[in-house]
Amino acid sequence: MHFSAVKENLTDALQIVQRALSAKNTMAVLSGIHLVCADGQLTMTASDLEVRLEVTLPVEVIEPGETIVQGRGFTDLVRRLPAGRIVFKNTSQDGSDHMTISYGDNTADLYGWPGREYPGFAPEKDPAELTMAAKDFCEAISHTAFTVNADEVRPVFTGLLFQIRGHELTIVGTDSFRLAKKITVLNNKSGDNFDLIIPVRALNEWARIVAAEEDPFEMEISDRQVLFKTANVRLLAQRIRGDFPPFDKVIPSGWQTYVKLERKPLLEALDRASLFSREKDGTLVVTFHIENNLLHIATASEFGKVDENLPVYQEGETVDISFNARYLSEALKAMEDSHLDLTFNGSMGPCVVKPQAADKYLYLLLPLRR
Amino acid sequence: MHFSAVKENLTDALQIVQRALSAKNTMAVLSGIHLVCADGQLTMTASDLEVRLEVTLPVEVIEPGETIVQGRGFTDLVRRLPAGRIVFKNTSQDGSDHMTISYGDNTADLYGWPGREYPGFAPEKDPAELTMAAKDFCEAISHTAFTVNADEVRPVFTGLLFQIRGHELTIVGTDSFRLAKKITVLNNKSGDNFDLIIPVRALNEWARIVAAEEDPFEMEISDRQVLFKTANVRLLAQRIRGDFPPFDKVIPSGWQTYVKLERKPLLEALDRASLFSREKDGTLVVTFHIENNLLHIATASEFGKVDENLPVYQEGETVDISFNARYLSEALKAMEDSHLDLTFNGSMGPCVVKPQAADKYLYLLLPLRR
Repeated sequence: MHFSAVKENLTDALQIVQRALSAKNTMAVLSGIHLVCADGQLTMTASDLEVRLEVTLPVEVIEPGETIVQGRGFTDLVRRLPAGRIVFKNTSQDGSDHMTISYGDNTADLYGWPGREYPGFAPEKDPAELTMAAKDFCEAISHTAFTVNADEVRPVFTGLLFQIRGHELTIVGTDSFRLAKKITVLNNKSGDNFDLIIPVRALNEWARIVAAEEDPFEMEISDRQVLFKTANVRLLAQRIRGDFPPFDKVIPSGWQTYVKLERKPLLEALDRASLFSREKDGTLVVTFHIENNLLHIATASEFGKVDENLPVYQEGETVDISFNARYLSEALKAMEDSHLDLTFNGSMGPCVVKPQAADKYLYLLLPLRR
Repeated sequence: MHFSAVKENLTDALQIVQRALSAKNTMAVLSGIHLVCADGQLTMTASDLEVRLEVTLPVEVIEPGETIVQGRGFTDLVRRLPAGRIVFKNTSQDGSDHMTISYGDNTADLYGWPGREYPGFAPEKDPAELTMAAKDFCEAISHTAFTVNADEVRPVFTGLLFQIRGHELTIVGTDSFRLAKKITVLNNKSGDNFDLIIPVRALNEWARIVAAEEDPFEMEISDRQVLFKTANVRLLAQRIRGDFPPFDKVIPSGWQTYVKLERKPLLEALDRASLFSREKDGTLVVTFHIENNLLHIATASEFGKVDENLPVYQEGETVDISFNARYLSEALKAMEDSHLDLTFNGSMGPCVVKPQAADKYLYLLLPLRR
């Protein structure tokens, strides 16, 4: 393998690819980046077996080929090279690879592995093809992904549910204490229905990659995996097996208390109240008392207390309810709307937060026992 | 004590003061901020006994007085208050203080200590008064402070030497492996000579505080302390007792090898070489071979190697010398000059780095045994 490339193109591409590098993986080659050059292009791949990232960029191919370079070393070195065109030449000998990188009159060498040792990726047959606007995707992920803990031990709780019905996509995330549900649209060529759980880590990566993308991206859904792709980046994620909890059952259809309020003052009051809230196993507890069009928040600790009344529009019963303050403020931060609807079902029933006059998004939070 | 103040003024002032708060101090009141209000002003003080910071700001005084508030709690709360005017009212009862903070229709309370419990600061008699341009000070500190380790156990190595001779100020820093010496100017009203060692932490704080200051600041040197002040900020530092090492003796007067080179290419080559340098007790080792107007840097590790030649202007002998790469690159980063003079005294003698054609700054680095 022998090619030359412009440094800036390489660093841009490596910035994406290196995020799938796996430091703790047991397969040594997964600490590497797989390079394949042919047909005027270089394809760089990194994978931790759960998420696989591929970026393609134009290079001047002198001799096609493949190799695996030590991922962290390659990324760090390329970033430190002088601007401009850099020449890469790989030689294989005795089962190990050796890449010589030339810049100006100087050279660096990186030892690696033969390209054929990189684990392949088996494309599945007849995937369903869909496209989606990057902006819709990023918004939906920012409204839902924060409810999911990627380190959770139960696999279905490390992913987001994508429920596709025709051109409608419902994304649901939960950690069993709270739940976010967002309805958005995509272009589903087959028109078929799908229910799939996708690792939240993969979705967060994809949202980061397409954040500035103007064009729609493609999604290919197959039996065991889902492939996201733009013109030059591909992310392959393994679908999570298992049954997603029956989320529609926990969303109450009615309410005992309805409140309409401004989002920002509530978020700011919550922020202050958190400073003094009693901590219970690392959880900051805040309590709301809602009565007579006032939402009263009071917290006290050994070094002070805060006592606030927020004017709200209220219908229905008086309610006293305690929450994990972080769970509520994360949701308020994820919403951009100026006014919100909150509904309560007594002290022990779920609270539902919705942007005012929008039926495409809801956030459900279970109260804490007091 | 009862006063009102504009939130933004308070947060700006607290951002300075809170940096002297001491979390691990044994005196509980040192986790607090001392507030004194009188004559249309609020003075806030924090101290860890080594460094004492005072900021004064205009407030509307309703009733003068003093108190100590819990420092972290006060800072966090004020930052989270709504913009605009905020009312603070302190009451003392049974030996403990209680500050009520009112904003809009809401209130928060902070428990504190009576103001009289805050440790005083004894101004010393007849201090020498000097003034200095903030720009000169900040430049000199950025050229010298990085050589000093504030956590070093030997006290004299935790400070910078200020050697004042008339209007000339020489600042020296060292950790016994490297040394930086910078000559600058100040306005010394008495014209007397001074040798004082000032904690590097205090100097770094002061450089941060006056970084954007147009006016000169004042320095008051007395027997045991040194006071830095602008119109509204005062930093009091305890002078470090002890004898500073006789630095002039270690600076060689001659050289065996003289090299003139461009700073940036050397820094970049060093940066790449560091990636592959062998590590010895956490130290990244790089070796220079200088011969025939070429500076050759080569490093190798288990995952690769780099081999570079930098064209230089050379006089004198060929030299092979090894350095702690970090010590050299920190110095190269502290200099802004495009060209540097390097002099060497064999493999085991000190290397001296100077900006080209400048005699106001030098950096000395001892080589590593190879």
